[in-house]
Amino acid sequence: MHKLPVAVLGGTGYAGAELCGLVARHPAMELAFASARQPGELRPTGARRAVPVVALDDAPLDRAELVFSALPHGVSATWVARARRAGARVVDLSSDLRPGNPPVAALDGATRVPYGLTELARDDVRGADVVANPGCYPTAILLALAPLLRRDLVAPGATIAVAAASGVTGAGASPRRELLFAEVAEDFRAYGVGNDHRHVAELQAMLARHGSDADLVFTPHLLPVARGILATLTVPLREPVADLPGLWRADYDGEAFVEIAAAPPSLREVVGRNVVRIFAAPAANARRPIAIVLAAIDNLLKGAAGQAVQNANVMLGLAEQSGLPL
Amino acid sequence: MHKLPVAVLGGTGYAGAELCGLVARHPAMELAFASARQPGELRPTGARRAVPVVALDDAPLDRAELVFSALPHGVSATWVARARRAGARVVDLSSDLRPGNPPVAALDGATRVPYGLTELARDDVRGADVVANPGCYPTAILLALAPLLRRDLVAPGATIAVAAASGVTGAGASPRRELLFAEVAEDFRAYGVGNDHRHVAELQAMLARHGSDADLVFTPHLLPVARGILATLTVPLREPVADLPGLWRADYDGEAFVEIAAAPPSLREVVGRNVVRIFAAPAANARRPIAIVLAAIDNLLKGAAGQAVQNANVMLGLAEQSGLPL
Amino acid sequence: MHKLPVAVLGGTGYAGAELCGLVARHPAMELAFASARQPGELRPTGARRAVPVVALDDAPLDRAELVFSALPHGVSATWVARARRAGARVVDLSSDLRPGNPPVAALDGATRVPYGLTELARDDVRGADVVANPGCYPTAILLALAPLLRRDLVAPGATIAVAAASGVTGAGASPRRELLFAEVAEDFRAYGVGNDHRHVAELQAMLARHGSDADLVFTPHLLPVARGILATLTVPLREPVADLPGLWRADYDGEAFVEIAAAPPSLREVVGRNVVRIFAAPAANARRPIAIVLAAIDNLLKGAAGQAVQNANVMLGLAEQSGLPL
Amino acid sequence: MHKLPVAVLGGTGYAGAELCGLVARHPAMELAFASARQPGELRPTGARRAVPVVALDDAPLDRAELVFSALPHGVSATWVARARRAGARVVDLSSDLRPGNPPVAALDGATRVPYGLTELARDDVRGADVVANPGCYPTAILLALAPLLRRDLVAPGATIAVAAASGVTGAGASPRRELLFAEVAEDFRAYGVGNDHRHVAELQAMLARHGSDADLVFTPHLLPVARGILATLTVPLREPVADLPGLWRADYDGEAFVEIAAAPPSLREVVGRNVVRIFAAPAANARRPIAIVLAAIDNLLKGAAGQAVQNANVMLGLAEQSGLPL
Repeated sequence: MHKLPVAVLGGTGYAGAELCGLVARHPAMELAFASARQPGELRPTGARRAVPVVALDDAPLDRAELVFSALPHGVSATWVARARRAGARVVDLSSDLRPGNPPVAALDGATRVPYGLTELARDDVRGADVVANPGCYPTAILLALAPLLRRDLVAPGATIAVAAASGVTGAGASPRRELLFAEVAEDFRAYGVGNDHRHVAELQAMLARHGSDADLVFTPHLLPVARGILATLTVPLREPVADLPGLWRADYDGEAFVEIAAAPPSLREVVGRNVVRIFAAPAANARRPIAIVLAAIDNLLKGAAGQAVQNANVMLGLAEQSGLPL
Repeated sequence: MHKLPVAVLGGTGYAGAELCGLVARHPAMELAFASARQPGELRPTGARRAVPVVALDDAPLDRAELVFSALPHGVSATWVARARRAGARVVDLSSDLRPGNPPVAALDGATRVPYGLTELARDDVRGADVVANPGCYPTAILLALAPLLRRDLVAPGATIAVAAASGVTGAGASPRRELLFAEVAEDFRAYGVGNDHRHVAELQAMLARHGSDADLVFTPHLLPVARGILATLTVPLREPVADLPGLWRADYDGEAFVEIAAAPPSLREVVGRNVVRIFAAPAANARRPIAIVLAAIDNLLKGAAGQAVQNANVMLGLAEQSGLPL
Repeated sequence: MHKLPVAVLGGTGYAGAELCGLVARHPAMELAFASARQPGELRPTGARRAVPVVALDDAPLDRAELVFSALPHGVSATWVARARRAGARVVDLSSDLRPGNPPVAALDGATRVPYGLTELARDDVRGADVVANPGCYPTAILLALAPLLRRDLVAPGATIAVAAASGVTGAGASPRRELLFAEVAEDFRAYGVGNDHRHVAELQAMLARHGSDADLVFTPHLLPVARGILATLTVPLREPVADLPGLWRADYDGEAFVEIAAAPPSLREVVGRNVVRIFAAPAANARRPIAIVLAAIDNLLKGAAGQAVQNANVMLGLAEQSGLPL
Repeated sequence: MHKLPVAVLGGTGYAGAELCGLVARHPAMELAFASARQPGELRPTGARRAVPVVALDDAPLDRAELVFSALPHGVSATWVARARRAGARVVDLSSDLRPGNPPVAALDGATRVPYGLTELARDDVRGADVVANPGCYPTAILLALAPLLRRDLVAPGATIAVAAASGVTGAGASPRRELLFAEVAEDFRAYGVGNDHRHVAELQAMLARHGSDADLVFTPHLLPVARGILATLTVPLREPVADLPGLWRADYDGEAFVEIAAAPPSLREVVGRNVVRIFAAPAANARRPIAIVLAAIDNLLKGAAGQAVQNANVMLGLAEQSGLPL
């Protein structure tokens, strides 16, 4: 069977390495090459053969029909444009093309770049040439929030509080002292508090799209685990909802990668799998109707490489679950 | 120098063991005995000699002038009453005597039992015969919230969202499968979501005392660390505050056990110390004024045994910092 | 396709649960039922449907053609005998039928019970009705040691020192205080030092079989990780060996589940996979020839459930790799 | 009271930072300054005031009467010589001046540099101007081995197998990918196997000093913990010893920093304390007499900064326990 030749730009970070593995084991793709600072070759876990690793500037973009860019924010857009010019379809894992970021000059202005939260944007993704893969935090938060936004159930003028915690692979593989084992173990802390985190633009774009005037306050935390994100949302509601979890069950009925849980989800339930696991419950003992919504994902799969392959499957008309660990 | 004879009821749980150590090293106290299911003796870290451990029913309460009860909720109140009748002063670490819990029949109705959040209740604690030691989560949350409540700065009708995470010693030392290393490591989850957690009554009592009609939504999480609590509060404000951290600095000026941090506090900064470390910042990019307040404590020290000794010091007229690790 | 009905006795411990998952996902097997203290049903990760869980005494042994017993040592042998009488073939994961243990009266004396270190005993396992699945530590140690024993390369009168470390799932899922997260995290310790560990009999039986008079000194340690065993062997040799790693490469050539590594193996390289990864090097700066041999396995896969399925595949004439994660 | 002005060269690595803290809290010392790549100031935990941090080349060596060098191996010796010329006494934590390393030209040939395993070299250290502080692994191993070497109890021609495991602070604070939390957590591996580890020279020098012809095979491992070393020694003996632990009890009687344990020592028992905890037992079921000896230390205290202060106390005629956590 012909397999689609695929390139991964930025193949040695955590998301890039995960992508290389997914592509190498994908029944309809083959990894043509990856780029990295140190050329050589790599052999993903479970792959049958080694794959060439080239310096970015030497990347033979014309040899790939599909390019995943896991390059750093700010660097990626240029390479997306080059890959397009070389004729490849592209899934960009950086924030460069996501809503809320400045438009990318290098990219042909006519290029439609859907924001690939696959379950919410499947029709836009199908047939697109470039997809902006969502950030890890926004993936968990927006899939959790959508059923409330869509029904205009968020209380007017509400403060949506989102405390989210991520494993350290979310901070990347570049060695920094604060990411050393001896610094992270037995610790927990918030970071970027009150600041303008890169992900906030994505989140607010979605609120705006639904006409909500709520404030979403996002506080990320660093967990002493390798992988996984848990987002905890406290959402004041416009009115009481009789069967709160029923909203998520209705909206995600039939979705292979969304699980509506009967108990608060844990990282262990999602790590290694391309799923989001969501739980919703009304706040007890409150005077007003308030929803607590929890969403857990593997930050490297549903939060990055997994959703990127999911988007690619949809773009290419493959089975959406193809090559993805459930 | 005469040292005050002290008993610790329930000396083998994590908080009880911590108490035994603090008492044994306290310059003005000596550990007369501890109670536990398995009688014998124990030697706290850093203690010069071993101390008898007796079954609870054999506890010679008349030999102690001060009793700390670290007995389970529901069991403790009876023993507080017995210790009072034997003439001892008591600090109760259980929830039995805290606000929001039903009154304790065994205890003489006239007994005033202040809620010992020491920094906020010093005058009530001084000279009291019995003190209800606050829960670990409420200690962090209420010390963080007090400057806003006191100034009536919480927005009317607001939802105060509190996502808090605790190390596993907060769940006690009784062996349960879900607390095994193989279950907790590399995991993170919320628990008791939307439920009526024991601590909620304490929290709401404080809101009511300040006349706030806000809803406080408390979502606790279990962290893969041994010790420490971090509480993350998102608080809609009545009006913008020019110097937000200045409120905490003003209110806790001169407090030995409160640190107003210039960056988000981490567990490592507080573990092993009887302090609360607080950080406050306004939410960026919000349409309305919102405060993010973070508070970190060691759940076994400022959240349990340390604050218990701090209360005892105040009750007895000792230096408040006596015997406490800074 | 007809699938072989399989039972797992003791399905809720860590090895039992792993077995249930492997069987449920095995292309030629189907999980008929499992036994556990608490009857009900279970749904292994990745399984399509839930499976009944019965109390051990209610186990319908005649409904299974293959039985895996993950029952405790001392309890298992009786149930192996019952399963045999009911006509099933059995893989016993307990130590009851392993060499060095007393003979099992209940079992028909004529029953041959090969010690299923599959790579070394394939011919014995093929067609056997009962197989004694090796212990986790002996699996790693004996696969590491075999090439030296087989060639009589261990120095006469030598002391073979084996320091081995296991993740906490090796200690079972029964809640004990010393296995709580708060006790294990940030710790490391040896246990059973100098004692007659259950595994020592298995190890010495293998030495005796090869006529070696060496003393094997086994010191197990408890690691703060969930899964994995690393065994570190220091072996005085009879004579220098020019290409030490070549011995392992020669002996395990073509083995799907044995990897001869070019660098010391790590737990992360083997966890989740049914492999042993071995590294050998001569000691530097020594006056005498000495080999250092390292072997890493996932204690629940190659050290328990994985090798059990591997043995079952061989017993039944299936492809040896069938249903096993590489 | 006059306090001795002390400098710490290399004050930002893990050992250097620990030293700064110990000196700052030492009753007879005051931290004059520290050196680091980034000048500024630091305030050790528990210290009353901040201390200047200077670039190494700007270090005012004449302002310190005692200098601790925690500089890298290869760099340190030059600065030891400069500090000597400036008139300071020096404890060098690098390997530069330890036995088995080439002589240091810069240092006056007449300078006697005792190897400061304090308990075994107290008379040499007393009054010395320069002391070579032992490595972390050799401290644990040699204190464990000394009672056997001293009595010539190691079997002639024996292989002493030492499998030792260290927390990641032993690998330093320089950011390297293999030390990131996401790489170290849930892993365990040996490193430098069969190689000529820096510490081997120190170990062999000690064997030679006692006239032993044994081979010591040292295999270090990296543990997923922040602090602590456990060394596991398997030692063939010349003859059986009736009361094996009695040898250690006799030799270390009265030592404040050596604990002979009744059970295998754990890292948690020694972390945060300047002690070595030793356990010895004969191997069971062996044909020949073999000792298993375990030793645990905090690699940053008894294995580095703590022993350095202990040596300084002895050099200066202070109480040996002064300023050291027991």
